[in-house]
Amino acid sequence: MIALNLIGIGTGNPDHLTAEAVRAMNEADLILLPRKGSARSDLIDLRRTICAAVLSRPVRVVEFDMPVRDASGNYVQAVQDWHDAIATAWRDQIAAHLPQGGRLALLVWGDPSLYDSTLRIAQRLLAGGMAMTVRVVPGITSIQALTAAHAIPLNPLAGAVTITTARALRDHGWPQGVDTVVVMLDSGCAFEAIAPQGVSIWWGAYLGMAHQALEHGPLAETGPRIAALRAELRQRHGWIMDVYLMRRV
Amino acid sequence: MIALNLIGIGTGNPDHLTAEAVRAMNEADLILLPRKGSARSDLIDLRRTICAAVLSRPVRVVEFDMPVRDASGNYVQAVQDWHDAIATAWRDQIAAHLPQGGRLALLVWGDPSLYDSTLRIAQRLLAGGMAMTVRVVPGITSIQALTAAHAIPLNPLAGAVTITTARALRDHGWPQGVDTVVVMLDSGCAFEAIAPQGVSIWWGAYLGMAHQALEHGPLAETGPRIAALRAELRQRHGWIMDVYLMRRV
Repeated sequence: MIALNLIGIGTGNPDHLTAEAVRAMNEADLILLPRKGSARSDLIDLRRTICAAVLSRPVRVVEFDMPVRDASGNYVQAVQDWHDAIATAWRDQIAAHLPQGGRLALLVWGDPSLYDSTLRIAQRLLAGGMAMTVRVVPGITSIQALTAAHAIPLNPLAGAVTITTARALRDHGWPQGVDTVVVMLDSGCAFEAIAPQGVSIWWGAYLGMAHQALEHGPLAETGPRIAALRAELRQRHGWIMDVYLMRRV
Repeated sequence: MIALNLIGIGTGNPDHLTAEAVRAMNEADLILLPRKGSARSDLIDLRRTICAAVLSRPVRVVEFDMPVRDASGNYVQAVQDWHDAIATAWRDQIAAHLPQGGRLALLVWGDPSLYDSTLRIAQRLLAGGMAMTVRVVPGITSIQALTAAHAIPLNPLAGAVTITTARALRDHGWPQGVDTVVVMLDSGCAFEAIAPQGVSIWWGAYLGMAHQALEHGPLAETGPRIAALRAELRQRHGWIMDVYLMRRV
């Protein structure tokens, strides 16, 4: 029997870990760390740093190569295929390192509930007949790191918020019925697709990390500034992860 | 000068606190705990328990009576008036206990960004001329405690999520353009206003606490079960706080 622990570790700042996350890491028989290629090597370095910072007993930590998503063709189908491939990689690691079962921990950026694939991959192993329990340990998301860094509320008073993807924002525009939108998974600057009149933006990159960057202001003047800064930071660090909130005011 | 720390403490489980929250509490010169009347006395007890669990130095902890919101008349105006009254109460406590300035900490259920008034109250003090910095320490929200307890993703694959209030759900129905809705601030059972065909619900009350309760399933059959259980739990404990996610499947 495998006891799978999906542990939210926040956005890269070890101080974001909860006591529950630290305990779950220390109680694991095996922690699997995915390697995603050299461009994002500081992400696996950060996971290693977090393990070094919080493990108080000798937990076995194994790194494995993550399959790469096919960037061509239908997006949702490509993601489904990618999740299948990751499930196979997990199964191989479990067979190799936990053949008698035990407590397996995976460290998830942010929170396992939010634009993360690990719960869906775990479902594939369960559907394939693996004897496994799944436990989720919540973690601070990049949205929370963003609103905390800017010291702003997520929702307007008594109002609603939509959390969406850059793809959906480009395809469908500003979501109906809400004055606040949070955009995730943006590999570009999808806010450029929005008419900027009356819209303000709060943006953050590398949230919680040493090189955190923040910008905010009216979208009309702040959008171009973010686009330029984003290109510069991406070149400097080799990768970028960012998130932003837009509000009609 | 006042250094205000708004510290997210999660949903009542001390294990949900982050290392950053624990440090911010220990670095405070004063922690203010609001008393909200006897019906929710276990909430202030929980805050006291959290202080006792994580304070490793003798931080001054002062309790004060929270003003009561006027339940009659216009909702948004009543909330605005209530926030004004709370700002006055904070100002009085600061004058009494930190007349020379210092680090003030307030413990916020969940995360200060999400359906919480403390940032708006701090704005009132700043607008009134108080010399004050505001720092937000993020915490695990009830939404994260809900999705973790049920081990479900918040968003559908590549899809959007709307977080809204019971009031908005009753007034406007299912939000447009999304298949997942999270409903907060529900003093009743607003899910009863939704046509249940094709909708599933995941519900949780007292999340993270010892008497946490969970229900999930198709809304048509689960809704009435939640309504009955909710009434029973409310009577047993004298209060209830719950949250739920509904998904079109």
